[in-house]
Amino acid sequence: MIKGKALARRLDHVGIVVRDINASLPYYIDVLRMTVSSELLLDDGSARVAYLEIGDTSLQLLQPLKPGPLADFLDQHGEGLHHICLQVDDISNAVAELSESGTVDAIRQGGRGDRVSFISATPNGVPIELSERAPA
Amino acid sequence: MIKGKALARRLDHVGIVVRDINASLPYYIDVLRMTVSSELLLDDGSARVAYLEIGDTSLQLLQPLKPGPLADFLDQHGEGLHHICLQVDDISNAVAELSESGTVDAIRQGGRGDRVSFISATPNGVPIELSERAPA
Repeated sequence: MIKGKALARRLDHVGIVVRDINASLPYYIDVLRMTVSSELLLDDGSARVAYLEIGDTSLQLLQPLKPGPLADFLDQHGEGLHHICLQVDDISNAVAELSESGTVDAIRQGGRGDRVSFISATPNGVPIELSERAPA
Repeated sequence: MIKGKALARRLDHVGIVVRDINASLPYYIDVLRMTVSSELLLDDGSARVAYLEIGDTSLQLLQPLKPGPLADFLDQHGEGLHHICLQVDDISNAVAELSESGTVDAIRQGGRGDRVSFISATPNGVPIELSERAPA
């Protein structure tokens, strides 16, 4: 569903930091009976990722594999909700626009080949990632 | 989209605890250009709520109005991501089924007249609410 002027067309995923994906997946698969749509390693090797389908969005389980922001989050907060990711049609345009009202990271390669960027000035303590999907 | 055997058909909303909805809304409305689909008070008067549309789901801003679990969350964690809510077709069935593998709260009245229940034994520190939508 594309809203006339909305910046994002869809909630791409909700990011959840976990200690061990293998230990976490059975609850989502066996109890909630969700389907894993993909599993991958981030390009920089910093995390193992699994996507679980729910409606037109996904839950993204993130297991940190080496020191960095995700491992820091796990140390400080324990497992839990980490960020939301909004799908935009053109991330270059979205980043240019949002740069006027806050701090937006450089565009980089995300999971599944998408182009992504994090909004650093997070409203309400909610880290927001923007994602432009890779061509199918 | 209904998956063959999935417990939930859709991510109903992502709950975000905020200190002051009036202070939070402008970012979502003016910067992300999201639309408020409804605003309400919870029946027990414990929180003010605003729903922001995104694809087939919503962000739910929750402003605690009196002492309780939401106010405790705000005190302990500050503003931020609080829970996810999964829409089920029949909450009585879902609660009966999940009671076999964990602790599920009694069904009560949620926002927008929905029937809701929280899974208390939260996997990965993620509170999961179940919701059966009220008839339109």
